[in-house]
Amino acid sequence: MSADHPIAIVIHGGAGELEKCFTEEEYSAVLVQAACAGYTLLLEGSSSIDAVVAAVVVLEDSPLFNAGKGAVLNSAGGIELDAAVMEGSQLRAGAIGAITNIKNPILAARTVMEDSPHVLLVGRGAEQFAAAQQCQIVSPDYFHTEHRREQLKRFLAAKQSPADSHQHGTVGAVALDKNGNLAAATSTGGTTGKLPGRMGDTALIGSGTYADNRTCAVSCTGHGEMFIRHAVAHRLAMPSAHSAASLSERAGEIIRELKLVGGSGGLIAVGPRGELVMEFNTPTMPRAAIGADGNLIVSFGR
Amino acid sequence: MSADHPIAIVIHGGAGELEKCFTEEEYSAVLVQAACAGYTLLLEGSSSIDAVVAAVVVLEDSPLFNAGKGAVLNSAGGIELDAAVMEGSQLRAGAIGAITNIKNPILAARTVMEDSPHVLLVGRGAEQFAAAQQCQIVSPDYFHTEHRREQLKRFLAAKQSPADSHQHGTVGAVALDKNGNLAAATSTGGTTGKLPGRMGDTALIGSGTYADNRTCAVSCTGHGEMFIRHAVAHRLAMPSAHSAASLSERAGEIIRELKLVGGSGGLIAVGPRGELVMEFNTPTMPRAAIGADGNLIVSFGR
Repeated sequence: MSADHPIAIVIHGGAGELEKCFTEEEYSAVLVQAACAGYTLLLEGSSSIDAVVAAVVVLEDSPLFNAGKGAVLNSAGGIELDAAVMEGSQLRAGAIGAITNIKNPILAARTVMEDSPHVLLVGRGAEQFAAAQQCQIVSPDYFHTEHRREQLKRFLAAKQSPADSHQHGTVGAVALDKNGNLAAATSTGGTTGKLPGRMGDTALIGSGTYADNRTCAVSCTGHGEMFIRHAVAHRLAMPSAHSAASLSERAGEIIRELKLVGGSGGLIAVGPRGELVMEFNTPTMPRAAIGADGNLIVSFGR
Repeated sequence: MSADHPIAIVIHGGAGELEKCFTEEEYSAVLVQAACAGYTLLLEGSSSIDAVVAAVVVLEDSPLFNAGKGAVLNSAGGIELDAAVMEGSQLRAGAIGAITNIKNPILAARTVMEDSPHVLLVGRGAEQFAAAQQCQIVSPDYFHTEHRREQLKRFLAAKQSPADSHQHGTVGAVALDKNGNLAAATSTGGTTGKLPGRMGDTALIGSGTYADNRTCAVSCTGHGEMFIRHAVAHRLAMPSAHSAASLSERAGEIIRELKLVGGSGGLIAVGPRGELVMEFNTPTMPRAAIGADGNLIVSFGR
């Protein structure tokens, strides 16, 4: 085992403010379950892709987070889900956008990567492809929770812009496996009251999700449009031989700079030596990590 | 006028091989028309966004290129169009994906940037938004040309993968205006025989399109999945204080590296001092440019 790389996993449940209708204990329980689901696979020798997908499936299946089951509603009262995975050895990636009936969008993203010649499928075509690949289809009712209906009602009553939302709740995971391969996965329901068809940064490779074994795997959460415009994930993961700053320092700088131009949010990342990064410019970012020392960390605020 | 920045525009009609059913003269005529449409606006003092959109509209309206009127067909025999615009002063961007009935996708992308809180709208939601913003709707028949139907028939008969296509034909434009603002625009029908719902790099900010006044405006064309995975546009446009190489040298290196991993294609870019860049690793990339000296260049091969 001594020649093996350290293993590590970090997960997030979205930067922003916690939903007041759930307790920290409830959040903690799911975060621990998700981190352990991924870490167990890493311990058993599975790939970082397996680990990040397993962790995100747990978060998607929980009503606490804005992804899968707990997705927010768009301005028409519907749900549209985005997700992406990427692995850092060959820079392979898969993503889906604006889908309405797949139980676990992250599994659909993975099958786009592994079973299609494409990186991104959206809408009805993505749904048809995922169904043909045996992804579980659910009725729209599966996603509709009373909590999200109330949230949309408040949003529409306040005539807010989706850009004003401070509750992001996107989920993501990054991991390093014993073969030194990095992977990232992100899944989201987007922003409350978004226009139908809107995609944020989550499913866009280089915006909200990226992985490169030379630098890091990264998963973002926040005001998606700002993360797209500033190419946040790729900004952190792009190989740059000239930087003396650590991964953590560079991530902190990017997230601070983003705040200066009005972009709220955060990111998690893991480097090729197991460096753990969790940076955010919002009040909280629910997160969990298990690093090379095997210790589990669960945190919310700074 | 002496304090003004130089003005410049570069356009491309896709890296790959020319369609054999059209002559170089036919291509030249449209390229010149498109470049002049944009350049005239720059001369009159209009913004670089106005210029790149005007140039791309000319290319979209021509049946010669794989964008707008001349879009290729997907595996189901339908058309799905992607487009993006970005401006380099505030890093504002707008894009649409997988739309079927908007005559000029680049105008829909622009209205997403200017009239919505979002960056990317896809599918039916994008069509509804564009229609509400007075973008011209056309029937699917508008796009269906005999030429593209024959192409799909050959593709399906040969059981090719969309990844094997060497005819890309995406169109794009980049420009610098007298105020020193850079802008980029890209528009495409994607790849022949693509799966329904597939989006390539064109509409993804940082993949096929990017603009940052500090570095460059860039528009890509080629095997879209590879451009997404390698975040080509952002790789060139990301501010990096440490590089001594010129914009043209860095673009050449990126396109050569992409070739080594099997990614065919090319890009055009313009820098803040009017530097013109046209790099590609394919047999041809139909293109035109008018630089600070006011000279018009039209080229196909090296």
